[in-house]
Amino acid sequence: MTFEVTILGCGAATPTMRHLPTSQLVNVHDKLFLIDCGEGTQLQLRKYKIKFQRIEAVLISHLHGDHYLGLMGLISSMHLLGRKSKLYICGPTALKEIILLQMKLSEMYLSFELEFISTQTHEGGVIMSDNTLTIRPITLKHRIPCFGFVFTEVERKPKVSRGSIERWKLSIAEIVQLKNKVDIIRNDGSKLLWKDLTEAPPKPRSFAFCSDTAFSETVIEDVKNIDLLYHEATFKKDLEKRAKETFHSTAEQAGMVAKLANVGQLMIGHFSSRYTDDNELLHEAQSVFPNTILANEGLTVNVKSLL
Amino acid sequence: MTFEVTILGCGAATPTMRHLPTSQLVNVHDKLFLIDCGEGTQLQLRKYKIKFQRIEAVLISHLHGDHYLGLMGLISSMHLLGRKSKLYICGPTALKEIILLQMKLSEMYLSFELEFISTQTHEGGVIMSDNTLTIRPITLKHRIPCFGFVFTEVERKPKVSRGSIERWKLSIAEIVQLKNKVDIIRNDGSKLLWKDLTEAPPKPRSFAFCSDTAFSETVIEDVKNIDLLYHEATFKKDLEKRAKETFHSTAEQAGMVAKLANVGQLMIGHFSSRYTDDNELLHEAQSVFPNTILANEGLTVNVKSLL
Repeated sequence: MTFEVTILGCGAATPTMRHLPTSQLVNVHDKLFLIDCGEGTQLQLRKYKIKFQRIEAVLISHLHGDHYLGLMGLISSMHLLGRKSKLYICGPTALKEIILLQMKLSEMYLSFELEFISTQTHEGGVIMSDNTLTIRPITLKHRIPCFGFVFTEVERKPKVSRGSIERWKLSIAEIVQLKNKVDIIRNDGSKLLWKDLTEAPPKPRSFAFCSDTAFSETVIEDVKNIDLLYHEATFKKDLEKRAKETFHSTAEQAGMVAKLANVGQLMIGHFSSRYTDDNELLHEAQSVFPNTILANEGLTVNVKSLL
Repeated sequence: MTFEVTILGCGAATPTMRHLPTSQLVNVHDKLFLIDCGEGTQLQLRKYKIKFQRIEAVLISHLHGDHYLGLMGLISSMHLLGRKSKLYICGPTALKEIILLQMKLSEMYLSFELEFISTQTHEGGVIMSDNTLTIRPITLKHRIPCFGFVFTEVERKPKVSRGSIERWKLSIAEIVQLKNKVDIIRNDGSKLLWKDLTEAPPKPRSFAFCSDTAFSETVIEDVKNIDLLYHEATFKKDLEKRAKETFHSTAEQAGMVAKLANVGQLMIGHFSSRYTDDNELLHEAQSVFPNTILANEGLTVNVKSLL
């Protein structure tokens, strides 16, 4: 089952010829979610041939422009191209006001429904869920209210093998019972144990998005044992003071979060435009947490159970 | 003296891999003005190496997203890169509300002053002027309030030739008098006529931006004898009904406006994303008004007195 993250933009603050502002697409079992939507995101979706009408929800971390200024244009294009299905927008409460004001002034009457979900009223809970995944907002440490997101697959039921079905001539009711981890006692008194007849399902995988944030103990708790962690690394450690003042992290701090949270893999991003070689940031993070990779526009990373 | 227009985006409605949404830079005597600021404009400014801190004013025609959604990001980048000088924003009254709301929610305290000027309260008048140019808003015919802009050079004073100065031993006071078109009567009763001693200044040049608009008699009046007219040409004439319904123009209609207004040159733009060959639109406009060119990203056109 697909679980992958595609980077559409991983630069900080202002778009440059090297990096676009934050945006990434998360594909969980072919359901598409967009996290953040900086200016230019819709063109990135076109460039990487992602069908943006298939996006079910857009999750916005916070209301700094480099994380949401592409959203109104994306909604507008979805409308112009005839979208019919509902779009969920999860983000800070005030995002709704910005979008509705712009729609009102342009006299735009959408061809589809928008449903706004406030991350702020779902703090500590689950913001979206279905039978395949849950999405939880996590509180980041930034200058204005800012939330990360943790995507977790729902644990699948154990699988009853074809061999067992044939051998024991299992009825559909019995198969359901075994998958629900209930043993079977047949009329003849014989016992079929679910543990013997089923295979364990794959371990649920998880991905966490943490941008923008200063180094935070709370974040470490919230991303414990995550398979793939995207954590911002705006600065190198010589600018740790600047990172603290602006509520951002250094690459070293991103590595420390990954290490202390015991994650499987770390991907760093949100690079300051002052750096022309992102490898310097990579090496700094890797010195603390070796299994680190650099985000880059167009990169797709498979989320794997690494723990 | 420089008077040129650089196209940054000339597509309609939604950005594509071929055209970006509307934006263009007008350079009048090295003063820079940005007309419209669709999503992606700040990256286009970087691409064409235009120093965006030198932009004195941004003029926004109307509040459809493809004409202004790049503005908040541009302001934000100007701030992050330390702009100090005042920026004028001319546009519909409600633009101020959109910008101030977004600044408030991101807790952005600008490093420079923003001054909003409403096109709506300057209808029929002059929106900006100095000793080199005037900018007038003109009322376009669109679905929501929408304004074009006419840039006109201020007529320069006549020039007194070096030869005349030497021959008649003119004092500075006398030169000023001649430049102000006043004849000189000297103490000995001799008369020096300003018409004889001065050269006519170059004819003031003019540029008009008209997007978005349906075919409009008022627009024709407002752009009479303009040297360069940028007029939208969203559709080909087979979609004239659709153009009328959506308050846009066909390429043929753009040509008719140019012809009836007796302009020097026509540049068409705001092309619907349905066309893969803009030359079809060009040929249609040229069949009515031969001196027509196609807008395209990166194109710079000199404004010349052609009439």
